[in-house]
Amino acid sequence: MPVNIYLIPLPLFPGNLASLPADVWTYTRTLSHYIVENIRTARRFLRELHPDLPIDPIQWCEIDHKKEEEALSTLKKWVAEGHSIGIMSEAGCPAIADPGSIIVAAAHKLQCQIVPLSGPSALLMALMASGLNGQSFAFAGYLPVKEPALQQRIKELETLSLKYNQTQMCIETPYRTQALAQALCRHLQPGTLLCIAQNISAPNALITTKAVQQWQANPPQLDKLPTVFLWLKA
Amino acid sequence: MPVNIYLIPLPLFPGNLASLPADVWTYTRTLSHYIVENIRTARRFLRELHPDLPIDPIQWCEIDHKKEEEALSTLKKWVAEGHSIGIMSEAGCPAIADPGSIIVAAAHKLQCQIVPLSGPSALLMALMASGLNGQSFAFAGYLPVKEPALQQRIKELETLSLKYNQTQMCIETPYRTQALAQALCRHLQPGTLLCIAQNISAPNALITTKAVQQWQANPPQLDKLPTVFLWLKA
Repeated sequence: MPVNIYLIPLPLFPGNLASLPADVWTYTRTLSHYIVENIRTARRFLRELHPDLPIDPIQWCEIDHKKEEEALSTLKKWVAEGHSIGIMSEAGCPAIADPGSIIVAAAHKLQCQIVPLSGPSALLMALMASGLNGQSFAFAGYLPVKEPALQQRIKELETLSLKYNQTQMCIETPYRTQALAQALCRHLQPGTLLCIAQNISAPNALITTKAVQQWQANPPQLDKLPTVFLWLKA
Repeated sequence: MPVNIYLIPLPLFPGNLASLPADVWTYTRTLSHYIVENIRTARRFLRELHPDLPIDPIQWCEIDHKKEEEALSTLKKWVAEGHSIGIMSEAGCPAIADPGSIIVAAAHKLQCQIVPLSGPSALLMALMASGLNGQSFAFAGYLPVKEPALQQRIKELETLSLKYNQTQMCIETPYRTQALAQALCRHLQPGTLLCIAQNISAPNALITTKAVQQWQANPPQLDKLPTVFLWLKA
């Protein structure tokens, strides 16, 4: 019988359990082995979901760039022992915009059955809410921090957007959000539609889509919060 | 006060309510106006969620390519009257891989507040489960049906995959799924990783990632079911 690997989403902001499906409660009630981006966050999350669940017997393995090899050998060991495993990111869906896909790829090679659970994804919710093309889109991760590489990359993605009628998406760390918004307003064409989606699923979420020339007339003033940027050159 | 537009996901297969967050129950309990891809599906879904909810007073507007103008003028009218509106697709998340984004774009112009709810998305869940790069990816919609356009498009997307280390995704209607799987096995490079994700979130889901040469050795035999194809040329 193949081992099941459950990909378990977390809320986009702590405590927002109403954004999670019942499946998350069901599977986390019985899993005893987890590979996670951050053990502290993951433990706190399990305690929130199941206040009565004994957390101490649970086995944890943390994955980050430094501990990749360790996480892969833990995966192999647990699969050989026949344990089902949960994978959790710091927030949102694991293996999207985070290093979790390395574990999933290894699990495929070990003939595991991968079970993705539905849940909140800032990228997907931003795309839904942007009004931009949801039938052709691309996510580029983080853009270069410095000029002229940043300008070049923005223009390259805008060219791809025009060629394929493709919504372009990227993210930035909270403290560089305002700088990236300014760079996008400076380098994109005036008629390109730009959506700024900040703090998605939180009560103070801000999701606005306007032509770049309208943003230029009223420049965005962004807080240092998680933000998704999306644009489409039609 | 701005009008709220709620983007409400449906399960990927009928009845799978355990894949939906509590938010979906909360908002659908009070909304009285809906713009949907299919009224019959939407009514059945509301009845499943809230067996005691009076469905008859609810106002519906169906959106498809033929009725786009009608849906847009209904949106304007309802927003002017101050009604909050729910948008629902046939399955999964609205405005992703369906025409719903036209309504969302118009709602932005009418200064509405867009509220995306989390929920199941076949594309996102396939990407999570594929083990392919989740830090750079693109969705191309449907590929051309006929050769040589199909081969050209597959090779173009494979080139983009290599250039940007970008996972490529596409979908196909159930009855052409087997033909597209064969075309991908024929036209992609032997070392390219190909994930076939069929009937995601259903008990008979099949999510397999292998090199194209391994698929060629054991050709996929796909049922006529919703399928996402993903590939990465490293």
